[in-house]
Amino acid sequence: MKNFLDQDFLLQTKTAQQLYHEYAAPMPIIDYHNHLPPAEIAANKKFSTMTEIWLKGDHYKWRAMRAMGIDENLITGDADDYTKFKVWAETVPYTMRNPLYHWTHLELRKPFGITELLNKDSAERIYKEGNNQLQNLPVQTILGQFNVEVLCTTDDPADNLEYHLAMRQSDMKIKVFPAFRPDKSIAVEDPVAYNAYLERLSAASNTAINSYQALLDALKKRQDFFHEAGCRVSDHGLETMYAEDFTMAELESSFQKIRKGEPLSEHAVRQYKSGTLHFICQWYAERGWVQQFHIGALRNNNSRLLKRLGADAGIDSNGDWTVAQAMAKFFNRLDKENQLAKTIIYNNNPSYNAVYATMVGNFQGDGIRGKIQFGSGWWFLDQKDGMEQQMNTLSNMGMLSLFVGMITDSRSFLSFPRHEYFRRILCNLIGNDVENGELPHDVKWLGKMVQDICYHNAQKYFNFQ
Amino acid sequence: MKNFLDQDFLLQTKTAQQLYHEYAAPMPIIDYHNHLPPAEIAANKKFSTMTEIWLKGDHYKWRAMRAMGIDENLITGDADDYTKFKVWAETVPYTMRNPLYHWTHLELRKPFGITELLNKDSAERIYKEGNNQLQNLPVQTILGQFNVEVLCTTDDPADNLEYHLAMRQSDMKIKVFPAFRPDKSIAVEDPVAYNAYLERLSAASNTAINSYQALLDALKKRQDFFHEAGCRVSDHGLETMYAEDFTMAELESSFQKIRKGEPLSEHAVRQYKSGTLHFICQWYAERGWVQQFHIGALRNNNSRLLKRLGADAGIDSNGDWTVAQAMAKFFNRLDKENQLAKTIIYNNNPSYNAVYATMVGNFQGDGIRGKIQFGSGWWFLDQKDGMEQQMNTLSNMGMLSLFVGMITDSRSFLSFPRHEYFRRILCNLIGNDVENGELPHDVKWLGKMVQDICYHNAQKYFNFQ
Amino acid sequence: MKNFLDQDFLLQTKTAQQLYHEYAAPMPIIDYHNHLPPAEIAANKKFSTMTEIWLKGDHYKWRAMRAMGIDENLITGDADDYTKFKVWAETVPYTMRNPLYHWTHLELRKPFGITELLNKDSAERIYKEGNNQLQNLPVQTILGQFNVEVLCTTDDPADNLEYHLAMRQSDMKIKVFPAFRPDKSIAVEDPVAYNAYLERLSAASNTAINSYQALLDALKKRQDFFHEAGCRVSDHGLETMYAEDFTMAELESSFQKIRKGEPLSEHAVRQYKSGTLHFICQWYAERGWVQQFHIGALRNNNSRLLKRLGADAGIDSNGDWTVAQAMAKFFNRLDKENQLAKTIIYNNNPSYNAVYATMVGNFQGDGIRGKIQFGSGWWFLDQKDGMEQQMNTLSNMGMLSLFVGMITDSRSFLSFPRHEYFRRILCNLIGNDVENGELPHDVKWLGKMVQDICYHNAQKYFNFQ
Repeated sequence: MKNFLDQDFLLQTKTAQQLYHEYAAPMPIIDYHNHLPPAEIAANKKFSTMTEIWLKGDHYKWRAMRAMGIDENLITGDADDYTKFKVWAETVPYTMRNPLYHWTHLELRKPFGITELLNKDSAERIYKEGNNQLQNLPVQTILGQFNVEVLCTTDDPADNLEYHLAMRQSDMKIKVFPAFRPDKSIAVEDPVAYNAYLERLSAASNTAINSYQALLDALKKRQDFFHEAGCRVSDHGLETMYAEDFTMAELESSFQKIRKGEPLSEHAVRQYKSGTLHFICQWYAERGWVQQFHIGALRNNNSRLLKRLGADAGIDSNGDWTVAQAMAKFFNRLDKENQLAKTIIYNNNPSYNAVYATMVGNFQGDGIRGKIQFGSGWWFLDQKDGMEQQMNTLSNMGMLSLFVGMITDSRSFLSFPRHEYFRRILCNLIGNDVENGELPHDVKWLGKMVQDICYHNAQKYFNFQ
Repeated sequence: MKNFLDQDFLLQTKTAQQLYHEYAAPMPIIDYHNHLPPAEIAANKKFSTMTEIWLKGDHYKWRAMRAMGIDENLITGDADDYTKFKVWAETVPYTMRNPLYHWTHLELRKPFGITELLNKDSAERIYKEGNNQLQNLPVQTILGQFNVEVLCTTDDPADNLEYHLAMRQSDMKIKVFPAFRPDKSIAVEDPVAYNAYLERLSAASNTAINSYQALLDALKKRQDFFHEAGCRVSDHGLETMYAEDFTMAELESSFQKIRKGEPLSEHAVRQYKSGTLHFICQWYAERGWVQQFHIGALRNNNSRLLKRLGADAGIDSNGDWTVAQAMAKFFNRLDKENQLAKTIIYNNNPSYNAVYATMVGNFQGDGIRGKIQFGSGWWFLDQKDGMEQQMNTLSNMGMLSLFVGMITDSRSFLSFPRHEYFRRILCNLIGNDVENGELPHDVKWLGKMVQDICYHNAQKYFNFQ
Repeated sequence: MKNFLDQDFLLQTKTAQQLYHEYAAPMPIIDYHNHLPPAEIAANKKFSTMTEIWLKGDHYKWRAMRAMGIDENLITGDADDYTKFKVWAETVPYTMRNPLYHWTHLELRKPFGITELLNKDSAERIYKEGNNQLQNLPVQTILGQFNVEVLCTTDDPADNLEYHLAMRQSDMKIKVFPAFRPDKSIAVEDPVAYNAYLERLSAASNTAINSYQALLDALKKRQDFFHEAGCRVSDHGLETMYAEDFTMAELESSFQKIRKGEPLSEHAVRQYKSGTLHFICQWYAERGWVQQFHIGALRNNNSRLLKRLGADAGIDSNGDWTVAQAMAKFFNRLDKENQLAKTIIYNNNPSYNAVYATMVGNFQGDGIRGKIQFGSGWWFLDQKDGMEQQMNTLSNMGMLSLFVGMITDSRSFLSFPRHEYFRRILCNLIGNDVENGELPHDVKWLGKMVQDICYHNAQKYFNFQ
């Protein structure tokens, strides 16, 4: 019997252990997609309590506590920090078999060096010890301890990127880049919010957005600005892919309608998203950026909590929209004009893994190794089974060796052990195959493969400067 | 090599064995959803042959025999009981790797104590031995041997519950409750059948159902009656969820149309189901009942056999309807008015496990532990892989510790070894995790977790009295 | 640690090893569905280079090389054969965990006896050695070495079957039959191509196709001709099932429209496919043929490569169309008139395995063992995980014992080790169950089960003469 969370955690074979400790573990981290706040990185923020750094923004933990029947006030309300920590600690043993149980204890071990299991008995000790240590753990120190080399945050086109610009001029060792996430630029379902957004975009781009073409011009200007600030990657959060046919006249007509505050038909909404995404993505190709698509989340399902807490409140789940045909059409429309940028597609419903893994194979080539990528297990799939399924499907239907690997996709400075988690799982999959005679026992080659997936593939794929 | 079906069947580790034998096995059974006939329980029926108790109503076995090419007459026709038993016995070795092979031999071991494998050579011996024993195995004795504490049957609102009322006044040790299953109340696809049903409901409720509101009144009266009879749980069998917008005027108009025998449009059918379910479910919340939804079966696919045998003839399979958005909308519509009852959703297509497991997380809370449940592997998923997938998905995307566990969902008095089957699988999953260092070796806590899932969670969840 | 690809490759238990070596391995191969060119079999073609026999038609390998970023000219262009082989050899180590890695080395071992791993260092040696051996490996010799007993190719109704007719009159030991694949007969999306096809069909059937009924007559004549030539099996490649209601008048009207070159509405297209498939399938039942349906591929997604290379260029992927209701309706419409032929349905998106596995159970019977079959893992599922999932789903939801087993579905004369691959995986699944005490250790029965699945079931299922 292996001890819980020992040094060979998740590494079931000698080969896996060797691959992890000798090859994977030393690699730096390129976290090319997360939701960390640039302001806090730039300010090298110190958190004052474990609750502040660990629970305040983590809707995974909120969901677990809600399932326990804990009063919302103790989760996201105005209860004091220790009370909140304590109900979380009491919840932890009930999360066994959920990734939260592993993440929690990995995060206590690093950076805090706390090996005690968290529960109601240890809550006070761990709270105090963690709080003490936080005095000496400003966020850049934390990132340094995790050997983070590159970070990409997630930023709206209307953002002024002030913290990014400041960091570029500082002597920070960790490279932090913005990522272009224009979701609000296509969110035409809600005319009021959309028009309000266009005002922000208009101000940021110094452009009067009184036509659809002017909107495109404004967005392109913001891409210029982001590019100047070091951005080489974009991201889109979509329910499904949109690939309606469109003409500029139709898009212009929809634009004028929505500017008058009139709602669009369902078809016109899809068409508007289709067309606008198409243009935005053309520019990514021109600039040599990587475009990312996070597809399939069904968001904000609980009106009561949405009203109370806003978006990202732990009230999201898996959608089941069809996606294959529209995705093929969308990518092909770009590809046939040689305008398909390097692309990563992320799936969060495991039933669609095969669709994504086989889709990327249709558009490879152009002299770029691994041009189109099936991204790592996202959100609800960011756990051992989910990662294994993503990597197994990618292996069976594509090329694992060319995979650009893991990202945290997280709002938390403590979530970097997920790279360790991923690397252990990767090494374990390969080690098991060797053990079973399904791969040759060629540690040197397999070590290279592991290092490529953990670091070198991403390092070569992105044009960060 | 382990022996087939020995005492450590399905228990691959010492921890699993300890968890099962010391913690899981002694727990009583709360079978909160099945299709046993209350009349037979109340009458403490004795079955005269193995065929009668084992094959007469079991469409799982019928399917297996049909796949063998056996004449329907020997399966469901007028062949004599021994002939039917014999063709089943000949079929059994061909069912290897199907759950029928395990269930069959588990059921022979308990209650019959027969350890011989069933096949054409042993058929006669086992038939005679089983028939002999059945003379001393009235159904309440069988249920007692399986340590059944609570049973919930499945009953139509128009049912008079006479056997339930009789059992409540008897000194039966096993508690038997009705469950409210108003599927026919929303089955408006077929005006003729629907109107005939309304006559039954009208008589049962002593209400003239001449308006939609009168229908609601009648259904509510029947809920009162069921509540008085001890019912605290409902059940709905649905192809997918229905969450159309509706007004009372629209529902009234549809009602009047169908009362005239006119068919409704597809949209009107969905709207009628949506609205009626919404009202019925509000009342569940008011009463503190648990509502169950069994979703996704594609039923009655073979017209020839449907005509010959009626429904539940082994001619059903997995549907692939989209469900996520409608389910979120349906639950949210109730939740935002504080009218969402405790809820269990059951899935029978494994590709939707993630949708169900992540959906329940959106509506947890209100001070109730595990308020919304992803139910145990249903129907085609009621097998080892299916149970493991349901529990793994629930673990990864929710809280296994809070799970209310297994039900037979069966028409057979011999199907209770499926609780044993489930418990072994549960203990084995946990034992493997401990063995691999993925859970701490804390048998006391894990034993509590197992007992909660097997018994205590359900015991606390339902308000049976 | 097992050695890579040793004699017990994929066989993790003693029971698995015994089942494979003693029972499975000696069985002949009935490859009842593949895409081998009858002309090359009849001519007993000799290939001159490894590139010609191995890379020229293999879009699986093309996809892998494109993912590597290799120039298309070195993959499918006019680069010389050795250059093409070399880039493939360099790609091979990057395919680790993809089935290509196993297939490649299995194919080098048999028929070539080459055990060295293919990579850029061994490329030249292996190329020369393979080329040398090919001088003594005409295709019938290759097939003989793999113990192929029966082969069914895939042929258009308009084909004159000249090579099949020649082979029937030869003294070839291997039995080669045509299969009837009338996909073009229902491809009404493209009026121009459809009308051109009807000209070919008209010529082949010596029928003026000026009415829908005349089309049916022509197709039926071709079935007569195929039947005479030994054909007993058909095949259909479909995106999803089509089961619209139709009348002859509607089909006739659509036919006339398309004959004038006018496009049909989406509904009329589906209706045309539904009706025409219905008639064609009735005739299969009359003749005692087996009908096959390969469902769910999303084809030809890359316009640039489609234009350059035509269909089957490695630009296909998994679709996600709903299929369950239409499939049930389609089969039931035939079944209720006693016109449902023996049927095999193939799925290539693993998320639909349960739909397929449970669907077949609805239409079993009629005195035929395993009448309706869930076919082996197809295309993207033709790998270890895919085969295991197909067999596990079939086991859990149907009858593995009755399975008609593996086919290559391949364009390559070297792909027959996939039968070995399948057989090892099958024996391993059963061996693991025995090891774990989930099946009885009855090697004689399990050996029979294995031999049935590998050979006897297919041998009895088809009426090849």
